[in-house]
Amino acid sequence: MLKQVIIINQNIRMSAGKMAAQACHASLGAFERANSAVKENWEKQSQKKVVVKSNDLVKLKQMADDLDIPNFLVKDAGLTELEPGTITALGLGPDEEEKIDKITGSLELL
Amino acid sequence: MLKQVIIINQNIRMSAGKMAAQACHASLGAFERANSAVKENWEKQSQKKVVVKSNDLVKLKQMADDLDIPNFLVKDAGLTELEPGTITALGLGPDEEEKIDKITGSLELL
Repeated sequence: MLKQVIIINQNIRMSAGKMAAQACHASLGAFERANSAVKENWEKQSQKKVVVKSNDLVKLKQMADDLDIPNFLVKDAGLTELEPGTITALGLGPDEEEKIDKITGSLELL
Repeated sequence: MLKQVIIINQNIRMSAGKMAAQACHASLGAFERANSAVKENWEKQSQKKVVVKSNDLVKLKQMADDLDIPNFLVKDAGLTELEPGTITALGLGPDEEEKIDKITGSLELL
């Protein structure tokens, strides 16, 4: 089973809409970095997505890089609510559920 | 300027995480329905995404179909918080900002 996990930076405060937009950036960015075969399989499945929270997205990104999980770290342009460059979200996968769970298995749902 | 707009169904109550996941389904689903040229241009831009709310996503989807805007209406599988088939979100674009604004220009930010 493939899944995608979106991790929201719990160290910052965002409106619900801002948070949803950041989650979408992370989701699409990680998706685009997956290989074609994975993308195709993913589209045949239910495209499972889970949103969790963490206070160290940089460390999680490093772990994802080490495991070759497609990922995308979102830095906000700072045009609205946040300082430019603020890390808001991280997208992991789609990739095998077991592999992603090594990184996010212990994180709380948002 | 290309943008994507995600519309959340304001008639239902969802947790922040659920809502973010539904927004991601809408974002990715609409993205995948855009043509390759638009997708490529979009990737060269800042991938603007805006999240708004509405109480009639079916009508908005119809308007998007009429204007040939790539779109994706999300119906929840009903495994967690909602009844199966509940409409949760609608993704529009990426497409030209002016075109999308004809549909969503008057909607409130989430």
